[in-house]
Amino acid sequence: MRIGVLTAGGDCPGLNAVIRSVVHRAVSQYGDEVIGFEDGYEGLLDGRYRTLDLDAVSGILARGGTILGSSRLPRARLQEACRDVRETANRFGIDVLIPIGGEGTLTAASMLAEAGMPIVGVPKTIDNDISSTDRTFGFDTAVTVATEAMDRLKTTAESHQRVMVVEVMGRHAGWIALESGMAAGAHGICLPERPFDPADLVEMVEARFARGKKFAVVCVAEGAHPAEGTMDYRKGEIDQYGHERFQGIGTALARELERRLGKEARPVILGHIQRGGTPTAYDRVLATRFGWHAVEAAHRGVSGMMTALHGTEIVMVPLAEATAALKHVPRSRMEEAESVF
Amino acid sequence: MRIGVLTAGGDCPGLNAVIRSVVHRAVSQYGDEVIGFEDGYEGLLDGRYRTLDLDAVSGILARGGTILGSSRLPRARLQEACRDVRETANRFGIDVLIPIGGEGTLTAASMLAEAGMPIVGVPKTIDNDISSTDRTFGFDTAVTVATEAMDRLKTTAESHQRVMVVEVMGRHAGWIALESGMAAGAHGICLPERPFDPADLVEMVEARFARGKKFAVVCVAEGAHPAEGTMDYRKGEIDQYGHERFQGIGTALARELERRLGKEARPVILGHIQRGGTPTAYDRVLATRFGWHAVEAAHRGVSGMMTALHGTEIVMVPLAEATAALKHVPRSRMEEAESVF
Amino acid sequence: MRIGVLTAGGDCPGLNAVIRSVVHRAVSQYGDEVIGFEDGYEGLLDGRYRTLDLDAVSGILARGGTILGSSRLPRARLQEACRDVRETANRFGIDVLIPIGGEGTLTAASMLAEAGMPIVGVPKTIDNDISSTDRTFGFDTAVTVATEAMDRLKTTAESHQRVMVVEVMGRHAGWIALESGMAAGAHGICLPERPFDPADLVEMVEARFARGKKFAVVCVAEGAHPAEGTMDYRKGEIDQYGHERFQGIGTALARELERRLGKEARPVILGHIQRGGTPTAYDRVLATRFGWHAVEAAHRGVSGMMTALHGTEIVMVPLAEATAALKHVPRSRMEEAESVF
Amino acid sequence: MRIGVLTAGGDCPGLNAVIRSVVHRAVSQYGDEVIGFEDGYEGLLDGRYRTLDLDAVSGILARGGTILGSSRLPRARLQEACRDVRETANRFGIDVLIPIGGEGTLTAASMLAEAGMPIVGVPKTIDNDISSTDRTFGFDTAVTVATEAMDRLKTTAESHQRVMVVEVMGRHAGWIALESGMAAGAHGICLPERPFDPADLVEMVEARFARGKKFAVVCVAEGAHPAEGTMDYRKGEIDQYGHERFQGIGTALARELERRLGKEARPVILGHIQRGGTPTAYDRVLATRFGWHAVEAAHRGVSGMMTALHGTEIVMVPLAEATAALKHVPRSRMEEAESVF
Repeated sequence: MRIGVLTAGGDCPGLNAVIRSVVHRAVSQYGDEVIGFEDGYEGLLDGRYRTLDLDAVSGILARGGTILGSSRLPRARLQEACRDVRETANRFGIDVLIPIGGEGTLTAASMLAEAGMPIVGVPKTIDNDISSTDRTFGFDTAVTVATEAMDRLKTTAESHQRVMVVEVMGRHAGWIALESGMAAGAHGICLPERPFDPADLVEMVEARFARGKKFAVVCVAEGAHPAEGTMDYRKGEIDQYGHERFQGIGTALARELERRLGKEARPVILGHIQRGGTPTAYDRVLATRFGWHAVEAAHRGVSGMMTALHGTEIVMVPLAEATAALKHVPRSRMEEAESVF
Repeated sequence: MRIGVLTAGGDCPGLNAVIRSVVHRAVSQYGDEVIGFEDGYEGLLDGRYRTLDLDAVSGILARGGTILGSSRLPRARLQEACRDVRETANRFGIDVLIPIGGEGTLTAASMLAEAGMPIVGVPKTIDNDISSTDRTFGFDTAVTVATEAMDRLKTTAESHQRVMVVEVMGRHAGWIALESGMAAGAHGICLPERPFDPADLVEMVEARFARGKKFAVVCVAEGAHPAEGTMDYRKGEIDQYGHERFQGIGTALARELERRLGKEARPVILGHIQRGGTPTAYDRVLATRFGWHAVEAAHRGVSGMMTALHGTEIVMVPLAEATAALKHVPRSRMEEAESVF
Repeated sequence: MRIGVLTAGGDCPGLNAVIRSVVHRAVSQYGDEVIGFEDGYEGLLDGRYRTLDLDAVSGILARGGTILGSSRLPRARLQEACRDVRETANRFGIDVLIPIGGEGTLTAASMLAEAGMPIVGVPKTIDNDISSTDRTFGFDTAVTVATEAMDRLKTTAESHQRVMVVEVMGRHAGWIALESGMAAGAHGICLPERPFDPADLVEMVEARFARGKKFAVVCVAEGAHPAEGTMDYRKGEIDQYGHERFQGIGTALARELERRLGKEARPVILGHIQRGGTPTAYDRVLATRFGWHAVEAAHRGVSGMMTALHGTEIVMVPLAEATAALKHVPRSRMEEAESVF
Repeated sequence: MRIGVLTAGGDCPGLNAVIRSVVHRAVSQYGDEVIGFEDGYEGLLDGRYRTLDLDAVSGILARGGTILGSSRLPRARLQEACRDVRETANRFGIDVLIPIGGEGTLTAASMLAEAGMPIVGVPKTIDNDISSTDRTFGFDTAVTVATEAMDRLKTTAESHQRVMVVEVMGRHAGWIALESGMAAGAHGICLPERPFDPADLVEMVEARFARGKKFAVVCVAEGAHPAEGTMDYRKGEIDQYGHERFQGIGTALARELERRLGKEARPVILGHIQRGGTPTAYDRVLATRFGWHAVEAAHRGVSGMMTALHGTEIVMVPLAEATAALKHVPRSRMEEAESVF
């Protein structure tokens, strides 16, 4: 069997672990040939690829990034690229394509599968917001990095009687903010799923100071926003890739809290350190299992499905279902977090 | 409501996170009184306790160990202690007891519940071998520590063309060896669940050297043992607590491999560093959720149950069911690991 | 002997290690009494203090921040406060004061010593810019945090063919940028000591891309600035404490490089995570030695001096000399860094 | 100029950083050719080498181990090999040889230099026991790993009221035990430089328990030994490389303390994790500077010297002087450590 692999979308710790696992299982167990396309769908369209044998994936398990490179495919081009991808895959004799990517990549994969291309997807997002899987790899690493940063910030906040506002990733779903905030014992957590009122944060901080705890840490997802009418907030400019740039809710909220509290408040924007570097053990195991099961599925003739974690098992779920809606933080999880503020 | 909390059995990262979460939820939400018994069931029997308010659990989320202390209750005394515990709990006006512990602790808890004591258990084991829950807190930390150690050992093994045999915890179940071995890319993994043949490891190492990879790392659970007749192995002496001491399978296997291969092989026994220190973000979140849900269950009048992770949800499962049998590594998980050797 | 201790100025990992060491040595060896003033000179002026015995410093060695709290004393008040401090110290029967702080704190200490107050200073700055000592504690931790962040950023930069501009601390001296840049293998390093020309960075990046290395990391000290006429750069607003706020050279430089290169460039501002959290082993040892030697010096009747590292030895140097000029990165150290770009 | 590089002796974090730095400086600044011999002097004798250009050293800065491999040359063969090395170096047209290694390697280098071979040495030992330099790279990493392990062990020791005996590296000098013991706040430190009396440790532990601190951590160098007549201790067997194997002072001391104290004592042997894996930022900077200055020295025509850290400067010192005697922990440093027990 000839298997094509590609990584698309934003960087995510664990991508190399998936690639390595696909190659190990396919080559060692089945004698397959594995081809890696460079820079995501672009490499597939342009015919840029390399053969991946055991030596090619030696030593990459613990390395962040992706040895294949990645790119983001603008939504507008997805539909038309779809036909080209199909043709190119045929030209290279690809029996099955294993795209590793986020919601955009998997939506494209779903279209390709409907167009007749054999596809087994592997979900990837540090944001953990893909439906139909309990978790995605990369998320644990992002939460770990954010938690370690907040562990550090708590001591400096305490020494200086400050409020620290830590902005973590999560444009549409607040999973990283929820779990890193809980893990680090943040005193306030703001998620995209529920507009916040700065007055509640002010009240929390003042209650803490009244109790003699003269600092506070607020963990805010980059996609969180104040409830209408509670705070003056204009989002940052938009760049040519459709992403906000350089100024965000963390900075705005720190200014607002400082103004209302009359105490020092400082923003810390963790940014890209959450998505780079060596994956945690958890993410390496999950990524390795996803790769293994993707190959198994391919050999069972599965298509239009992706790997998913259900409890302790890796199962296959329809791509169409997984990409139908983002997985948001439910109300019940928010309540768990609130109780430990 | 008056809630008693105790931690029993071996140390486990996340114990303090559970205690803190129980106190936060019980005190802040319900106005409960929380009492912490010292040194496990011993403190309950002896009447040694302290009141746990918000200040008492301030700053403990990220700390390893347990602020309440712990002890192991010899199996033989469990049955008789059972009656005393019930009486003592009554004397202190405990409405519900939340014991946080491993299989022994939970078995005792199950007996107490049957004897009429309201009990909500919280499972704890770094070995991840308690049934009825997908995971236990402490396990992720142990896997992380073992993985980081093997990451370090790989470079030194490679530079010196050596075989490193790394012994990790897991007396009866091989979860730590399985997951840390996968995460670190160990070339051989030996679990208690399946006797190993040293000849297979010799073959693997020689195949690697033949491919030009002049080192290997073998991850072996402390409870792994050779298949009958494959290797001379006598277990170490037994101390007064019923545990083996000082010499184990890691050392024996390193000697055996060195003898058979004619290459340097070195044992590394990770030991107690796997169970101490700050918990990972994953374990802090799981422990916090367990504590929260234990309080909720107590207020719903649940008894004889323990918290458990099912997928993404925390549910309550019967203690009797959870302690009926250890959760072993299934054959399917071993196969996933084998493919990436 | 009655010893007063205080920590002043910005937070710095290792402060607690100094406090603990002072108490251990003074109490255990000499039977001294140690008093800790709260929130720096403020506590001394206001008479807020607590007695520090062995129990008070138990478990603080590895903790970031300072158990005594800190504050910044505006320069303008230093002179007049000087007399009050002297009087207050007398009132509390302080035989010698050990202020732990940065350049401002030590300058104040020098004035106090000249006014007749027995003083042994301990230098503290994560910036490593105090003269007369090879190193200061806290610096190694800051460099370590910045290096780990850049290690993570390199993989994500590589996967996305991006330029990452990492802003680290260092308002007046570039030691953190120099050493973390060297340790992480940054491809460009900008220090306050030498105005940079963005054209040089553009040239470096383009040379790397031409060689097939399709990413770059630039490490820039917060106090670095472009050479006159090379780039439009206005510094951020100034807050009431005299510090710039929220927008800095890292963001400006990333925008500039993106504009000139036509490639994605992203700023990452590490901020306060560099000065919080547990100190590295190096910093704990240095801080412990400083505390030990400060007590020894006090008992030898030394005053107006501070502890300093010279080679492998801790020596005493005059406060006046140490605070006469900041220690800048010399040209020779910049050359070492340049060669590995 | 044609420069030969080799790494010899035990593995040490930072070796790759030196190699990279030598290549960067030599190739970029001087247009030199750099040749790397494989597996230490063995590769030089056997003519096994590869050319090291910028690509060959790309991405190795943060990697543990050595890309060139290493080997230990038995002392007996050093003298005779000396002549062969000289001849081989001539055959390959090597203008200067940069051996990176420990005391044995540098002694051989000194002989080679006396025999007329241009040599610039770079000292390497995690043990920090080479004279004439303030520090060696690798040492900080070893201390960091040992400190982190003890940080973890303290919480588990405390929860279980145990004595933990942690054996760290250091056969002839106790630097790692000294600094990691100080950094982790160990309650007892045993060094090779001074035979210890187990009775002192027993007294210390009992004093702690009497104060309510119901645990203790003892940090013991592998080369530490009891004073004559204080304790029955036979060293472990000796393997064919002249090293003790498998059983050491840590295990023996834990047994002895348990017997005398009647409390649980557990040994933890950190072993090879201290010498593998990514170097700390400190070690990367020191290693990079050593490589840079070795190339500079070579171009200045220096020979028979090695790089050394004096204060903040890298200087050249005679190999003969550096290898004349090991650098032991002086009495003054032991006293600093004792005061914080």
